[in-house]
Amino acid sequence: MDRWVVVAPERSRRPSDFRMERQPRKQGRCPLCPGNEADTPPEVLAYGKRDRVPDTSGWHVRVVPNKFPAVRNLPRETGRQGLYEWMSGLGRHEIVVETPAHVPDLDGQNPEQVAEVLRCWMERSRQLARDPRWRYVQVFKNVGRPAGASLEHTHSQIIAIPFVPAELGRELAGMHVYRRSTSRCVLCDMVAQELADGRRLVHDGGGFVAFAPFASRFPGEVWIAPREHAPDFTALQAAGQRELAATLLAVLRGLAAAFNAPPYNLVVHTAPHGEAGGEHFHWHFEISPRLSITAGFELGTGYYINPLPPETAAAWLRDGKTVGGNVSND
Amino acid sequence: MDRWVVVAPERSRRPSDFRMERQPRKQGRCPLCPGNEADTPPEVLAYGKRDRVPDTSGWHVRVVPNKFPAVRNLPRETGRQGLYEWMSGLGRHEIVVETPAHVPDLDGQNPEQVAEVLRCWMERSRQLARDPRWRYVQVFKNVGRPAGASLEHTHSQIIAIPFVPAELGRELAGMHVYRRSTSRCVLCDMVAQELADGRRLVHDGGGFVAFAPFASRFPGEVWIAPREHAPDFTALQAAGQRELAATLLAVLRGLAAAFNAPPYNLVVHTAPHGEAGGEHFHWHFEISPRLSITAGFELGTGYYINPLPPETAAAWLRDGKTVGGNVSND
Repeated sequence: MDRWVVVAPERSRRPSDFRMERQPRKQGRCPLCPGNEADTPPEVLAYGKRDRVPDTSGWHVRVVPNKFPAVRNLPRETGRQGLYEWMSGLGRHEIVVETPAHVPDLDGQNPEQVAEVLRCWMERSRQLARDPRWRYVQVFKNVGRPAGASLEHTHSQIIAIPFVPAELGRELAGMHVYRRSTSRCVLCDMVAQELADGRRLVHDGGGFVAFAPFASRFPGEVWIAPREHAPDFTALQAAGQRELAATLLAVLRGLAAAFNAPPYNLVVHTAPHGEAGGEHFHWHFEISPRLSITAGFELGTGYYINPLPPETAAAWLRDGKTVGGNVSND
Repeated sequence: MDRWVVVAPERSRRPSDFRMERQPRKQGRCPLCPGNEADTPPEVLAYGKRDRVPDTSGWHVRVVPNKFPAVRNLPRETGRQGLYEWMSGLGRHEIVVETPAHVPDLDGQNPEQVAEVLRCWMERSRQLARDPRWRYVQVFKNVGRPAGASLEHTHSQIIAIPFVPAELGRELAGMHVYRRSTSRCVLCDMVAQELADGRRLVHDGGGFVAFAPFASRFPGEVWIAPREHAPDFTALQAAGQRELAATLLAVLRGLAAAFNAPPYNLVVHTAPHGEAGGEHFHWHFEISPRLSITAGFELGTGYYINPLPPETAAAWLRDGKTVGGNVSND
């Protein structure tokens, strides 16, 4: 957790200083809408009516292979080219269609639907983790074109890859360092401090806590973590899924209200399955609105300049949640 | 140099697949244009006519403090808030106005003007490095709004900070690991391989070599490095500055031609002044066009998905340079 961020609040004052349109791409026929199931590769998982025929309508969550995958079901090949190593880009890349409704995000859905999306992330992650080729299953969600979404219909993505990502390895190593010196989990301690302090608290959802992290990299960044230590996101049971859905929905509605439906990325951080020491990881979501642009300084130094203090962001997100609707933009 | 990138070329085929407008912000009076010197804080360095009065016209390169700095000339204060540490955001943040002409980039300037910009980066970096508070001076350049530029008039930025950035520390550590196992410099070896191989070579500028790195994170990414080992960018002499200017200009014109004047970031990587082991660093520029969007996968894993193989990018950049002008956009 060795992260330093420059908080430069003089650069902005009001929610309307942070505005980025989602810029939906104008589409003809949406390949994710019900009735257009033939436009995607055959589904690998779906929740829907009991005697539904695969790849027809009647689903409420549906998982399909990405038609334009970043990684593929290839043989494992490695090689060298002088100094450099290469490996075939093997993996799985899937799309979770989060609702039949052609809407840009989950914030207008009911809690039961959001819980079904979470259940689907977990079930499909567990299925992929059974394949011995994959060392990590990354679940994430891009909303809006400035956040990388190329389809408007609300969806998330699951990528299975044959190694533990460098970023997650660093995070796990940081948790281990803290544990060795304190015998405690750093994220357990962070959650306890944020609940006691309150200034950066966005939502107390009982079993789950949403807060703006002290060293927020992005304006409006929010983390959601289970209050009690838990390494594996995919082990969450039905009651926990419902509670997490309510917490996530509170955060998404807060973001939509405070920042006028911003583009954002949601990234699930969970213990790599089968990794030694993974039980010391504390899973969490990191939600990063894309309201500022990461530029030369961040690229060069690895540090972020954030014009919005997390205490202010948390206050706006709590207010947004209470008030509802969009903020005025004067 | 432990970087893995997913190269996914199936996702795109032609230069026109990579297009991002620079989206200049419509401005009234430009604070960086000659005649408007009073719109900026007083200059800290300028090259111009011999008996010119400071903060008047007659300059050809001018450095001013950033009116909205990310870091400031503050007392050093540190503290704790429970688990977290904080430090006052101290540093210097300056703007280099690269030419009196109100143009969006350096690619239309003559080599002498570009050499003067490089001389200015070096001179101002050396001046800032004399202040014992600063451990690193970061020079970078953002071109176009999608790359973070908020002013249209071509400019670069210099930030002095009181620590060695994490990213640079990792890079230096990587170079040390390679040196311990081979007794050689990894970037010396990379430059030699790229010159011998040729497929990723963008421009051979004699003392400087421009190439698309094997593990390019971004479509069209280009590195420029001195052919001979050199840790400190700011030690370059006049003849070297002229040769580097010609190489940089060749790359910028290649980018403008191949990718239709893309937004980009240029980041100078140089040895931290006064840092033990810094002599093993090999300085270089990293130029990253912003033609794709870094999204949830990159945020979560620290890996990049790049749809454009560096060999293809290098071929386009070489062709663009030869052909000149913009590519057609059919």
